[in-house]
Amino acid sequence: MPMHVVELTEPRNFEHSKRPRPTPNSGEVLVQIRHVGICGSDVHYFEHGRIGDYVVESPLILGHESAGEVVEVGSGVDHLSPGDRVSLEPGIPCGECARCRAGTYNLCPDVVFMATPPDDGAFAEFVSWDADFAYRLPEPVSTRAGALCEPLSVGIHATRRGEIGLGDTVLVTGAGPIGMMVLKAARAAGASDVLVSDVVPSKLDRARNAGAATTVNVADEDLTDAVAAFTDGEGVDVVVEASGAAAAIASTTEVVRRGGTIVCIGLSQNDDIPIATNELVDKELDLRGSFRFRNTYHTAISLLEQGAIEVEDIIDFEMSMRDLTAAFERAQEPDVCKGMVELPSE
Amino acid sequence: MPMHVVELTEPRNFEHSKRPRPTPNSGEVLVQIRHVGICGSDVHYFEHGRIGDYVVESPLILGHESAGEVVEVGSGVDHLSPGDRVSLEPGIPCGECARCRAGTYNLCPDVVFMATPPDDGAFAEFVSWDADFAYRLPEPVSTRAGALCEPLSVGIHATRRGEIGLGDTVLVTGAGPIGMMVLKAARAAGASDVLVSDVVPSKLDRARNAGAATTVNVADEDLTDAVAAFTDGEGVDVVVEASGAAAAIASTTEVVRRGGTIVCIGLSQNDDIPIATNELVDKELDLRGSFRFRNTYHTAISLLEQGAIEVEDIIDFEMSMRDLTAAFERAQEPDVCKGMVELPSE
Amino acid sequence: MPMHVVELTEPRNFEHSKRPRPTPNSGEVLVQIRHVGICGSDVHYFEHGRIGDYVVESPLILGHESAGEVVEVGSGVDHLSPGDRVSLEPGIPCGECARCRAGTYNLCPDVVFMATPPDDGAFAEFVSWDADFAYRLPEPVSTRAGALCEPLSVGIHATRRGEIGLGDTVLVTGAGPIGMMVLKAARAAGASDVLVSDVVPSKLDRARNAGAATTVNVADEDLTDAVAAFTDGEGVDVVVEASGAAAAIASTTEVVRRGGTIVCIGLSQNDDIPIATNELVDKELDLRGSFRFRNTYHTAISLLEQGAIEVEDIIDFEMSMRDLTAAFERAQEPDVCKGMVELPSE
Amino acid sequence: MPMHVVELTEPRNFEHSKRPRPTPNSGEVLVQIRHVGICGSDVHYFEHGRIGDYVVESPLILGHESAGEVVEVGSGVDHLSPGDRVSLEPGIPCGECARCRAGTYNLCPDVVFMATPPDDGAFAEFVSWDADFAYRLPEPVSTRAGALCEPLSVGIHATRRGEIGLGDTVLVTGAGPIGMMVLKAARAAGASDVLVSDVVPSKLDRARNAGAATTVNVADEDLTDAVAAFTDGEGVDVVVEASGAAAAIASTTEVVRRGGTIVCIGLSQNDDIPIATNELVDKELDLRGSFRFRNTYHTAISLLEQGAIEVEDIIDFEMSMRDLTAAFERAQEPDVCKGMVELPSE
Repeated sequence: MPMHVVELTEPRNFEHSKRPRPTPNSGEVLVQIRHVGICGSDVHYFEHGRIGDYVVESPLILGHESAGEVVEVGSGVDHLSPGDRVSLEPGIPCGECARCRAGTYNLCPDVVFMATPPDDGAFAEFVSWDADFAYRLPEPVSTRAGALCEPLSVGIHATRRGEIGLGDTVLVTGAGPIGMMVLKAARAAGASDVLVSDVVPSKLDRARNAGAATTVNVADEDLTDAVAAFTDGEGVDVVVEASGAAAAIASTTEVVRRGGTIVCIGLSQNDDIPIATNELVDKELDLRGSFRFRNTYHTAISLLEQGAIEVEDIIDFEMSMRDLTAAFERAQEPDVCKGMVELPSE
Repeated sequence: MPMHVVELTEPRNFEHSKRPRPTPNSGEVLVQIRHVGICGSDVHYFEHGRIGDYVVESPLILGHESAGEVVEVGSGVDHLSPGDRVSLEPGIPCGECARCRAGTYNLCPDVVFMATPPDDGAFAEFVSWDADFAYRLPEPVSTRAGALCEPLSVGIHATRRGEIGLGDTVLVTGAGPIGMMVLKAARAAGASDVLVSDVVPSKLDRARNAGAATTVNVADEDLTDAVAAFTDGEGVDVVVEASGAAAAIASTTEVVRRGGTIVCIGLSQNDDIPIATNELVDKELDLRGSFRFRNTYHTAISLLEQGAIEVEDIIDFEMSMRDLTAAFERAQEPDVCKGMVELPSE
Repeated sequence: MPMHVVELTEPRNFEHSKRPRPTPNSGEVLVQIRHVGICGSDVHYFEHGRIGDYVVESPLILGHESAGEVVEVGSGVDHLSPGDRVSLEPGIPCGECARCRAGTYNLCPDVVFMATPPDDGAFAEFVSWDADFAYRLPEPVSTRAGALCEPLSVGIHATRRGEIGLGDTVLVTGAGPIGMMVLKAARAAGASDVLVSDVVPSKLDRARNAGAATTVNVADEDLTDAVAAFTDGEGVDVVVEASGAAAAIASTTEVVRRGGTIVCIGLSQNDDIPIATNELVDKELDLRGSFRFRNTYHTAISLLEQGAIEVEDIIDFEMSMRDLTAAFERAQEPDVCKGMVELPSE
Repeated sequence: MPMHVVELTEPRNFEHSKRPRPTPNSGEVLVQIRHVGICGSDVHYFEHGRIGDYVVESPLILGHESAGEVVEVGSGVDHLSPGDRVSLEPGIPCGECARCRAGTYNLCPDVVFMATPPDDGAFAEFVSWDADFAYRLPEPVSTRAGALCEPLSVGIHATRRGEIGLGDTVLVTGAGPIGMMVLKAARAAGASDVLVSDVVPSKLDRARNAGAATTVNVADEDLTDAVAAFTDGEGVDVVVEASGAAAAIASTTEVVRRGGTIVCIGLSQNDDIPIATNELVDKELDLRGSFRFRNTYHTAISLLEQGAIEVEDIIDFEMSMRDLTAAFERAQEPDVCKGMVELPSE
């Protein structure tokens, strides 16, 4: 039985085509996809056909922020049934390597990750997926929110990497979808004051509406001065760098307090960023990379179920998968935080 | 200049008397006390004249949950001024011993702690106190709430000891003031579901109103069964034992999941509690004592300032220090969670 | 092709029989077993036919401390070749459950563990085993030592659970094979002074020879007094309870310093042990179960390779698998720390 | 009563002069200095009269690696007596600030630190010092070794910051005194293989003699290639950067494994070092500054007492304080690891 998929065949070219509908293997569920968020990495593949060493060499289905409805279950799957709505964790690790055994499965070198060449993603009517990485959505959580469990997971993981907790003062640089998710996760974890910086006024407005204590437009204002003013010169407890901007990364050691923590999520255009390593020593800072996420989906869903975190406010528009090219173009406008794609297209 | 104080001279006997108003030493502030909460340990001294090895041998001023207004500052105090409202952290550690140097100043053997013989507490018009342990209350935080920063600190510390965070399922045994504060701190730290057990229906009602996902009246219901039903047989991630009841302590290893954590705050009447240590090994549990608090006051105040935590809902009554005996009697009624004392009595 | 195995058919009855030599599946290696250590749990099954809920219901092959030589490799195995000597990690977790994903694979409820009914162990000429749980032994490490990587792993894991490090003072209660391995691992991790207690003089002698700073024969001496004398009344930083004796477990809260850590490995005959939970709170102790091990085999082998740890000194006797009943009887003598079985019997 | 001191009056000018012998205040001990090590920072002040913002504006006594003999005790000092040999921890923190209360007293902004303008150091016949920061040396530990507890503390602290433990593979960049101390501390903490890099052959020889598994002369060999060869392309678990060389710092993200840790101790000549922050994210690395030390002296002394660590092998020469200028000149020769100064000069 054929199904509708969208393939990236070369940069800036989506083709709507048919592939056979997959059959779930043992341990898998077949999911009819309902919503897929557009991530910056999807846009990057669309524009450039590659991200670093990952090159689109044959038609690739993009999309890794997805949720839908179970329509069939493979053998040995007990915890899901047809009709269940699920969010799909896009990376399936090997479960056996040193990184997996140590509990850091996000670092598994053999992970299969949606929409990362050569692994296909979710802009498809149906996806068959390891049932252990498909999470049932309870009643109050929509498939829209389910799709956004992916960026929310990035925020939760960064919050854990930064050990953000009760009473912390946090700076988030960058108010895109990841920065917004960090803001929300940090607030949910008890951070008292979250400062957010960006250069787009509408994004900063949204951050304030979502609970930022204050925002800094770094097009107009010096970040270091603004943080010093807010913290009486002490610096923040934790910085989460979610912009990838070289200037933001370089400033992190200055705006954090002695003994504080910097979490880097944002990937930069630059290979090397000048870092004040002497400041890192003198202030005894921790600078921690944060890569994707691990063990976050149950957490994300329960926070959504409780209403402790709201995610749909970051969606700027929703379009049908039929209009995927238009959706990807709109997603690149500077004011846009998150574009959502709805399926099925019929 | 004399001031009004209340001294415990022997069990069940308060005497209203006069002492000279203290003069702040260098580094101290003189605080006119506004509110003092009645703690279970105050009641225990009142009833028995001792707690374990701590014996009231000369007239002792009780009360260690206090807040008031700065009326005078000693030399070298820059961060506080007369008119500032402050909450007083009741324990002043030595700052030099191995425990202090390791950052666990709550374990300092040489701590001076209010209302612990021979150190006086806060049922007094004025207290002179180390300014580094007096914390300014911002506008929206009342001195009532300021006094309750002490039990809230116990809740925050237990939450940190249990590493309670985003998405955790937590059981709090005991819905007295400490259990309530753990509930609030755990929710503020992102715990998804907090179960609370007790034997007093009105206390359980209050816990539900304060955000407990469910409550268990252990007079009627088996705790293990109730937790198993709620968690699909998995057990909770963290138990915080705040009742001191032997049965509750003994049940903790059963209701927690494999690899989970138990935090004990509640002191028991019994010297020894039977613990299923084999279960502790097989499930590889962490059983952690939690003693008072450290580094919690700034956190408590900023959570109160933000409205992230509400504390005044645990207050059942407020009386004047003139009526301290009556207040202590009422504080012992089973339905009462927290009694508050107002000063000055004039 | 048949192979020689020894089956426990009922309590105190070993039968030498033949089973078909296994063929390695994909991802497995076929190992000719060379050495198998006799563990207390093997002896317990031999004597009682059960440990708790684990009951020997059909003929069971015991033995889970094993090493041997690879004779055949299944498809997809790259890192091992015939002729390699290997140590076998006896538990194979599922790799997918919540505990595995969190890195605590020793807590996997679906683990396959050698010599735990219904899973067979290593008293067999050949075992086919997941190659990811077979670790190559470098030249200087014998298969005798390779078999002892299992108890050494228990010691390493307990050392990690106790966060034992540079300069720590440690008490190990029990000088059996596990206590000895904790002593060695703790010393290798930089513990300055390790005290060891037991009731058997020859075991205490061996502990001193292996680097114990002092030993306490608790048949003659009060443990609390001895620890207080050694530590100037402070208590030790970490206690590792490796005896399972109720008196030892109960004493742990007294002999550890304020803020210290207790690690329990030893399983007790008693279901419940009286614990001074008030002391646990007042001293803010951490009492941690330690169950088997995880991520220890590479560590164990590299410590053996370097000579940083010596293990063969705990072996009291070595017998052939032909004489397994005699070996199990000798292993129960009070002076014996570890019995070793040699294969093949021809 | 006058005593002999050596003051740095301007760059490259030591003056031997007399100052009044100090009298110990309450809580202090008067120590007759026996040995003082020459640290790179001493040399830097000698050559340049400043380190960053710290400027020698009035005659300054250098030297902060010191040990000697107690000759007088102030009131309230119980744990030391005249005749005790002691090592002096050179920094005395305030004990009350946020950093001190959190246990990170090495980050106290109000610390008094020997030989850091305007605080004098130990090139003096007598120093009066807070008795809580004077540590008794047991019999087998010389005052030479006692003076070297300071750089050893740096090594211990870095080892703790890197959480170096049993079985770890570690790269130490730089084989000066700090690199050597990291090597020794890492080995004592159970690191299996410690690789050391430098450009001076004699320093690398010494590292091998002290237990380095292998050494890399980065003048001849590519560090990344050498590490890849040693670790089968995996990278090391932990890198400790102790050279301050820009190239070494920049290479750390490449030579460490996924999920690994980098500890930076070395201060660089450059304000900013280009760091591959994308690699930091992709590999989810931890990059941690390590500043001086905290809670290390008891540990250092007990490791020395046990013989677990040997430190005197890093001393290249010993001269009298009379010849301090010559000693400082010799200390700058590239082959020299550590120069030691003996007192009294009479």
